Order: sequence, then structure tokens, then C-alpha cells
Amino acid sequence: MSTAGQVIRCKAAVAWESGKPLSIEEVEVAPPQKDEVRIKILFTSLCHTDVYFWDAKGQNPLFPRILGHEAGGIVESVGEGVTDLKPGDHVLPIFTGECKECPHCLSEESNMCDLLRINTDRGEMINDGKSRFSINGKPIYHFLGTSTFSEYTVVHVGQVAKINPEAPLDKVCVLSCGMSTGFGATVNVAKPKKGQSVAIFGLGAVGLAAAEGARVSGASRIIGVDLNPSRFELAKNFGVTEFVNPKDHNKPVQEVIAEMTGGGVDRSVECTGSIQAMISAFECVHDGWGVAVLVGVPNKDDAFKTHPVNLLNERTLKGTFFGNYKPRTDIPAVVERYMNKVSLPSCLSILSLYTSTNKKQH
Amino acid sequence: MSTAGQVIRCKAAVAWESGKPLSIEEVEVAPPQKDEVRIKILFTSLCHTDVYFWDAKGQNPLFPRILGHEAGGIVESVGEGVTDLKPGDHVLPIFTGECKECPHCLSEESNMCDLLRINTDRGEMINDGKSRFSINGKPIYHFLGTSTFSEYTVVHVGQVAKINPEAPLDKVCVLSCGMSTGFGATVNVAKPKKGQSVAIFGLGAVGLAAAEGARVSGASRIIGVDLNPSRFELAKNFGVTEFVNPKDHNKPVQEVIAEMTGGGVDRSVECTGSIQAMISAFECVHDGWGVAVLVGVPNKDDAFKTHPVNLLNERTLKGTFFGNYKPRTDIPAVVERYMNKVSLPSCLSILSLYTSTNKKQH
Repeated sequence: MSTAGQVIRCKAAVAWESGKPLSIEEVEVAPPQKDEVRIKILFTSLCHTDVYFWDAKGQNPLFPRILGHEAGGIVESVGEGVTDLKPGDHVLPIFTGECKECPHCLSEESNMCDLLRINTDRGEMINDGKSRFSINGKPIYHFLGTSTFSEYTVVHVGQVAKINPEAPLDKVCVLSCGMSTGFGATVNVAKPKKGQSVAIFGLGAVGLAAAEGARVSGASRIIGVDLNPSRFELAKNFGVTEFVNPKDHNKPVQEVIAEMTGGGVDRSVECTGSIQAMISAFECVHDGWGVAVLVGVPNKDDAFKTHPVNLLNERTLKGTFFGNYKPRTDIPAVVERYMNKVSLPSCLSILSLYTSTNKKQH
Repeated sequence: MSTAGQVIRCKAAVAWESGKPLSIEEVEVAPPQKDEVRIKILFTSLCHTDVYFWDAKGQNPLFPRILGHEAGGIVESVGEGVTDLKPGDHVLPIFTGECKECPHCLSEESNMCDLLRINTDRGEMINDGKSRFSINGKPIYHFLGTSTFSEYTVVHVGQVAKINPEAPLDKVCVLSCGMSTGFGATVNVAKPKKGQSVAIFGLGAVGLAAAEGARVSGASRIIGVDLNPSRFELAKNFGVTEFVNPKDHNKPVQEVIAEMTGGGVDRSVECTGSIQAMISAFECVHDGWGVAVLVGVPNKDDAFKTHPVNLLNERTLKGTFFGNYKPRTDIPAVVERYMNKVSLPSCLSILSLYTSTNKKQH
């Protein structure tokens, strides 16, 4: 029997207060409204950003809230005006959107949609400023427009990527956030040429995906930089060929890398969020052609600081958001790359084991 | 009678001490050695960098010295191993070189030759560490490898651009430095697309050439930023459509520009060397796709400082040196553009009048 148009009662993990254990509750999920989609979530993983907003330190606390934003599921029903998705479609909800109409969506270079750009402070749907979740009539806030820690969720159609129904949702769910962020930072923004050298700062999930991007680009040397040497072993599977621990040296890591590479790497990708790592990642690229890409999210009060001559010597400094992927236009193709084993297959298999955060909910 | 292989006695403007008037002296100019060319200088202009090193404040004083680096002339004779230039060729000596063999010269992206990159501290030829200028046997130092304030000078072949002999040397001599720096910063590095908006910080000669680059690229709005409003009138001839004087506003100029343009300009080019202008030029570009290019040379102790989120919002920050032109490979084509009136013609005519620094020496 169709549930379209009906309130669905299902289980969700609700964060009632900052830092308190999530509690599994029965929630009501209202039907999708204009330009909205209701999705049955089959798999969701846990990203550090969920933890960050659950902890809510230095963030606007917004509770009770249903967290979660890396997930895969199937469309249950669609609201008014939704024409490019239908019940049964396999989808990834994405924490940032693509309206396809604003200057950013119309630009080939940007994915920072004016309407649906990530907004960590928003707890309701933009259509009517209301939540679709409630418990006994009391509204529960959304998170990033996705709230995937629920068996059913309602998402703006602009935040939903329709993917190949044969793709295994338990694996590709991680493509909706960190993996695409790191992989895209390298292949879409740093764009190393075949044979070039690439430094990756931070060998967490995002950094490993960035290294995989360098590997598939044909980089000859992939230098992993991390304070934790135990990460090097795993990183080899993602193409990392050399490891530098800044703690092992009594000079700045950018100097160490410059010495290893005859003046600097061709490309660097910073995936830590540490301001010092950002500066090192920039200053370790070769003059004349080096490109440094910043991915990690810094603290509010951080300042990026360098001598301008480092720029005048023809280095380029760029930042990226979600690997410069447009959620609806580009993410289906990232899934296809995985399906065709062009890239990411070993990556996702290993990460599934590594993170152990994919959790079948049904 | 050929002067090849002979010492030439001619006039030169010699800087004996920092800040003291140049004095016209008779100097001996030795024949060119291996990989060197002796050039009869017909026209030379005065660039602020000459004044800077004449004044020698905060610079290594190196005297007596023959300054000058924006010039046009004719090859008088060539040294051993020089095959691509011959007596009679029309040439522009350039303050930075292109050996055609180092990694930078082999890279499509760089013009920062390892062998012949600008070196303001060097006063001799790299071949034998000696000067080719002397007065009664006492050596006089070279400047930037060009020393064009002399009727004859000796230059490394890697610093000589062979140009169309029909090009008027009194005009194209300025293409050997500031004009190409500004024009190239826009067309080679900022690369505005047709219809985009461009902000130019600093409306001196380099900034005007940068504006001309925006004009020929089809920019729809070219916003000139300068503390001196009298520069706006002239700048209109180079395509500048709007003028902003930071002194007229009680908020940062980047905010003023963002308000004028619905979030920021598509491209900016900084041609002042002021660190505050560099920061403003970066922060005034649109998120998602904005590109800021730094051209001006900062002070030794300056620090470029910005919040990293300005980068993560998909802005790009680049620097350029000599407009990313390779002196021997690219400058002849810049001269051709001028000859074919594709760009720069009005520019050079106006600049010749404006700067009044071109000086026929013969």
C-alpha cells in the first residue's frame, strides 16, 4: 500500500541535547511538499561533521535534531513540482544543493548554489520554514537538509543525486560527502598531470580519497603528510608512495618536502583543517607552476598568512568545497566511475572496513 | 667598418653612488663572450625599478652601475655559440631570461628560468663573472643583465627577444617590462571571459596595461581602483568603465566592490605592491569562480593575510611575474599584436606621451 501523501511513523536517532547520547525514537515524517522528496534511507555512515554538530561546541546549538548526511536510499514519494525523480529511484541525499538556476549553478566553475548551499544553522525546510519531523506534534529540527539518521527523511529535490540503481548503496553512500570532497579536490581542482608529484596533508578519509585522485591522475610521487605514522600503511592502498611526519623534523615540513622534490611538489591538497598545515601545503609547492588546494575547514579565528612573494613566484592557491562537484549533475558520474572500476573501487571497499560506520538500518 | 670583436667606446649614463645624479660618461664596452650579444640601444625608457635601485634604499647598493632595462635596439655583434641572432636583428633586451633548457623553460606554465631569472644583486655577466663595461679599466656594474642607459650594451642571448624589424622601437621598447607585465597578468593569468567584470588595483602604467588586457578580453565592466582620482580620465582610454577611490568610502574597498557587483568581481588584478591592496584585490572577487592575480612587488616584511574561508569558498589566488610571458618565446608575438593593432596600439601611443620617458639616444 502506498504511503505517499501520508505521515510515516518510523524510527530515528534523535539528538535531544548537545553531547548527550542519541536516542532511538519513533518519529512522524510528514509528506514531501513542493520541490521535496521523501526518501527511505537504507544505509547511512557517520561523518565527523555529525559529531561536531552533535557536540555543538563553537556552533549554534539547535536541538532536538536528527543528524546524518552521508547516506543512500530509495525515493518513497515526491512532492509537487518534482519531475526528475520518482518513487523507486536510488538516490544519495547531499548536504549541499544545486538549484540549477542561480549564477553559481549556471557557472561551470562553481558548485556553491545560492539557494541550497550548505547551511549548518538551518533546521527547517526552505519551502515553508517548517520541519517535516515531529514527535507527538513537537517538531524535531533537520540537519544540513538531509537528516539521514532516520528510516525516512524529507530532502529538497536540489539536494538529491539520482544514481545507478545497480550501485551498492552500502558502499556508495560515502560518495555523498568526504570521499567526493577529497577525490574531487585532486581531480577537479589540483588537476595533477601524469608524472607529477603530489603532497597530501592529512591521511583521514578525505585525504585518502585525495590520494586516490592523485593515483588515478597518474602522479609519479604521492607524499602523505600526517602526525600519525600508523596511517601510512593504509594510505599505501590509495597510492601514497612516501610518508612525512612533521614531528620527525626540526624544520618546517614545507622545507622538508622542497628538499625531497628539488624545489617543491607540483600539487598539494590540504585535508586537515589545521591552519599551519594549510600554510605548509601552500609553501611546499614548486614555484613557477605549483598549485595548492585547501579542503579542510579551519577554525573561525584562523588567518592564512604567507609572504606575497610566494604567490608572485607563480604559485596558485585555491580552495574547494565538496570537491567542486555539483551534487545533481556530477555525483551520478562519480558513482559510475566506481561501478566501472575506473577509480575508487578498492578505495570504497577499504574505507567500508576502515571506518566501520556504514550501518544497515533495515 | 665592423666593430665586431672590438671594444666599443660610447656614451652611457653612469650611477656612481646611490641617489646621486647619473653622469654621462664615455665607457668601454667589451665584445660579447659566449652566449652573449652586443646591442646598439636606440631607445630606452625609465621604469620605477631603475629609480628604486638608483636610490638603493633597502637594496644591496652596487655602484658604479649602468641602470636601464626597458629598451629597444639592434644587434651589433654576437658571441660564440649564438645562432639565433645576428647583427642587424631588431631586439628588446629583457630583465629576465629564458635559457630554454631548465624545468621552468620546459614547463608550459612557468617563465621563471633557473639560469636567467631576474637577479637584482648580480652586477656581472654569468659567463665569467666579469663586467663588460669599464672606464679606464675600472669595471662598471651591469643592472638586471640589460644596462640599457648606454649606447651599447652586452646582454645574455637568453635575455634578448628578436622582434619584427618594422616595429617602431621608440614605442615597443616599453613592451619589455611593465606593459607586458600588466597586459599578461590579465590575458595570461586572470583570463577574464567575455562579459565578465574585472577590478584593476592601481592605475599606473602596469595597471593601465592590465585594464587594456581586460578590454581586449571583452570584459563588460572594468573597475579601476586608485587613491588618485586624476588617473581615472586617462584610464578610460584603456577600457576602465568605473572608478573607485578607497578614500571616498568608510568601509573596506572589497565591500564597496562586492556591493557594486552583486557579490564581487569575476577577476581582479593588483598592480600596486601595497599589501592592503593585495588583500582587498583577493577579497573583492566573487565566491565560486573569482580569480585574483597579484602583480605588484611587496615590501620584504609584508604578510598576505586572509581568512581561509575566503579560499574554501572557491576563490583562486595567483601571482604572476612578467605577465607569465617567456621573454624569447612570447614577447615577439606581443609585438606582433601591437603591429596588427589587435591590442595595445592606443595604449602605447598614449603611454609614450604620458610617461614622456622614451628618449632617443641617437
